[in-house]
Amino acid sequence: MTRQTAMLNAYTPGAGQLSPGDRSLADRRAAALGPAYRLFYDTPVHLVRGEGVHLYDAQGSAYLDCYNNVASVGHCHPRVVQAMATQAATLATHTRYLHETILTYAERLLALFPAELPHVMFTCTGSEANDLALRIARAATGGTGIIVTDNAYHGVTLATAEMTMSFGPAVAPGPTVFPIPAPSAANYPQGIAAGFAQAVTKACDRMAAQGIKPALLIVDTIFSSDGVFPDPEGFLAPAAAAIRKAGGLFLADEVQPGFGRTGSRFWGFERHGLIPDMVSMGKPMGNGYPLAGLALQPRVIADFGAKARYFNTFGGNAVAAAVGLAVLDVIRDEALQENAAIVGAAFARGLRSLAQRHEALGDTRAAGLFIGQTILTDGKPDPVRAARLVNALRDNRILISSTGANGDSLKIRPPLPFSLANVDQVLTTLDRLLPTL
Amino acid sequence: MTRQTAMLNAYTPGAGQLSPGDRSLADRRAAALGPAYRLFYDTPVHLVRGEGVHLYDAQGSAYLDCYNNVASVGHCHPRVVQAMATQAATLATHTRYLHETILTYAERLLALFPAELPHVMFTCTGSEANDLALRIARAATGGTGIIVTDNAYHGVTLATAEMTMSFGPAVAPGPTVFPIPAPSAANYPQGIAAGFAQAVTKACDRMAAQGIKPALLIVDTIFSSDGVFPDPEGFLAPAAAAIRKAGGLFLADEVQPGFGRTGSRFWGFERHGLIPDMVSMGKPMGNGYPLAGLALQPRVIADFGAKARYFNTFGGNAVAAAVGLAVLDVIRDEALQENAAIVGAAFARGLRSLAQRHEALGDTRAAGLFIGQTILTDGKPDPVRAARLVNALRDNRILISSTGANGDSLKIRPPLPFSLANVDQVLTTLDRLLPTL
Repeated sequence: MTRQTAMLNAYTPGAGQLSPGDRSLADRRAAALGPAYRLFYDTPVHLVRGEGVHLYDAQGSAYLDCYNNVASVGHCHPRVVQAMATQAATLATHTRYLHETILTYAERLLALFPAELPHVMFTCTGSEANDLALRIARAATGGTGIIVTDNAYHGVTLATAEMTMSFGPAVAPGPTVFPIPAPSAANYPQGIAAGFAQAVTKACDRMAAQGIKPALLIVDTIFSSDGVFPDPEGFLAPAAAAIRKAGGLFLADEVQPGFGRTGSRFWGFERHGLIPDMVSMGKPMGNGYPLAGLALQPRVIADFGAKARYFNTFGGNAVAAAVGLAVLDVIRDEALQENAAIVGAAFARGLRSLAQRHEALGDTRAAGLFIGQTILTDGKPDPVRAARLVNALRDNRILISSTGANGDSLKIRPPLPFSLANVDQVLTTLDRLLPTL
Repeated sequence: MTRQTAMLNAYTPGAGQLSPGDRSLADRRAAALGPAYRLFYDTPVHLVRGEGVHLYDAQGSAYLDCYNNVASVGHCHPRVVQAMATQAATLATHTRYLHETILTYAERLLALFPAELPHVMFTCTGSEANDLALRIARAATGGTGIIVTDNAYHGVTLATAEMTMSFGPAVAPGPTVFPIPAPSAANYPQGIAAGFAQAVTKACDRMAAQGIKPALLIVDTIFSSDGVFPDPEGFLAPAAAAIRKAGGLFLADEVQPGFGRTGSRFWGFERHGLIPDMVSMGKPMGNGYPLAGLALQPRVIADFGAKARYFNTFGGNAVAAAVGLAVLDVIRDEALQENAAIVGAAFARGLRSLAQRHEALGDTRAAGLFIGQTILTDGKPDPVRAARLVNALRDNRILISSTGANGDSLKIRPPLPFSLANVDQVLTTLDRLLPTL
């Protein structure tokens, strides 16, 4: 498995067909934000407005959003905005005073988890949630060894960047981080469930040989950055058992699959019939408001909680809690999980049907509105063609990106109110574009 | 120097005079949030509303806020709330599309810095800003050694918690973290400027002896958790020179002193006549909205930016930028920095004047509206008496906390619209309470 060395779908400064106005913005951006920031696309998109599943540029053109899982209940959802504004005008305080909204929210959120996970801690970002999980896992296990997949993304703090293989060689993996191949059929031809579990056990054996005790197996339960690997349902359970047998914990990173996106279940891990030791959450949790968190089993947090205390200045503040509640309300009241199941299934069916006419479309891997679509040339995965397609879609006002260790797949991850008509627009556009690329 | 082992001003679960309703909230909290969360005060405060410099409990009682530096331009400031609501209803997108507000904000913010610091990167929390600074410093210097003060607080990520001495022995310092005594007159009786710089050099020598290369000297430029040490102005410059001489960088942690609080200057480091390599910002930056950042010199970020790229899903999103702009507008339009200078000076004068009548009041250390006030018994610093005073003030509806390695000082840090009448209320209450404690 080749690890990517550059960011997928990144703009090359100075290139592209930018208007003079957009070129000026790009220049101001480089001057003010410095060299570490990247834009999307060969020609970046300049946005001024969002609503539902659409984003609008400065000329008023609508882009169909098939990518942004943060604004998961729809861009600028009025109920979420209202909840934020009302609470921010009333009280925006932290967790060292008693305040009821955070409790109401925590209880509503925890009711969506198995009873084995009765606690939740709040952070602002998924990075902070995974970073906190690592601190807690170290305290609970006495170990430091971490198992991740080959092209995993788990965050940008020092500790989580060291377990984020998708940054490529520029960010060295930590000395106690042990990557294993992602659970694709290609990587485990003898069977994903047994093979992936065996890879976990072997990684633990390599740790033991170096005197490292296991702390954590952490996986994004839909393997977003590895290429999207949802199936077969249940394949993760033996891997979770394997890390536990070796004395480590199993952390389900639900930052991407969580909050109903996979359609059949609210959380990605539920498709695998297992109970994680910890579950991290983020992106869609506040529909864009910086809200993230970590659900935990009591035995995992007992030792850390007694000794180390936790406080996050903004994490779980009153506004975050009100926003989080509104997001849960909207998911329920607009039946967005059910919509993700129905529309996601239609999307996957449509792609598979299209693949019968277009040799560029390979394997479709989908769970609800999370879809990985391999792009082929002459029957082989082709990251260059995938990149051309991503940019051609952008020029046709459909926003999407690529994924996988070498970027050979489309990553399709629209806001959950995506409709069958939206699917049709994407399929029709693909049908038209594919023969030209 | 004794390091504190428990959190200052923490509630002991089950204790205190809670109403049945508040007791129920505390129980729900323990059940949902688990054992790592702490409340303030012997009897926690239950808040429902905030406005200006006041917080209100469920019974409608007003508490004068002398502690919360997050809601720095005043609780629930209508201009900040309006900016947040308007932008959230328009577009809440991330930094991989072109969007103008983030640039307008970055440029406005950078105009408040010396020209040597022309770049800013955005995160959601001060922890993330300091964590990112550490990653960048490692890349820029090739070193890993970190110097902090004895009771420093720099964050809750794994890497920043390892350089946060104020967590006490429960959170072990990282193996490359070298604490030095805080810059108090007691610690450096021969002179703070030379003594503190010498402590930095000695720490670098200890690193060298262990084969560790220096990366970073990081200090909160007002030493909030060490006990508040603002004076004499300029004392930090030789320490910054010392770390640079050893090959490391100087990071000014402005999460607490920044944004006009110190009165005479917008940033704490400006009081010391130096230009930091990096400046981290947080708490007051979004007046409660999770917004933080890192200003940098170009040579510091060049290497990291070329190789490692940076993206923070929520950091610097369009809403954060709009909120940050509104905060800068309010600080300017309401002359809050000037107010901090005037009211802070009156506060410090009042405390020193009160000290002539009350033997419990020792040293007053102040810069604008950031004040450390030592509490004495029989001429000796007395953390137990300080804790009694903090709780007595709470019972008299004035919110404050303590600071310092053993908690012997009041930490006074009100929202910046604090008035002379508010100061008078605190001084009058202290005058009444001190003889009883």
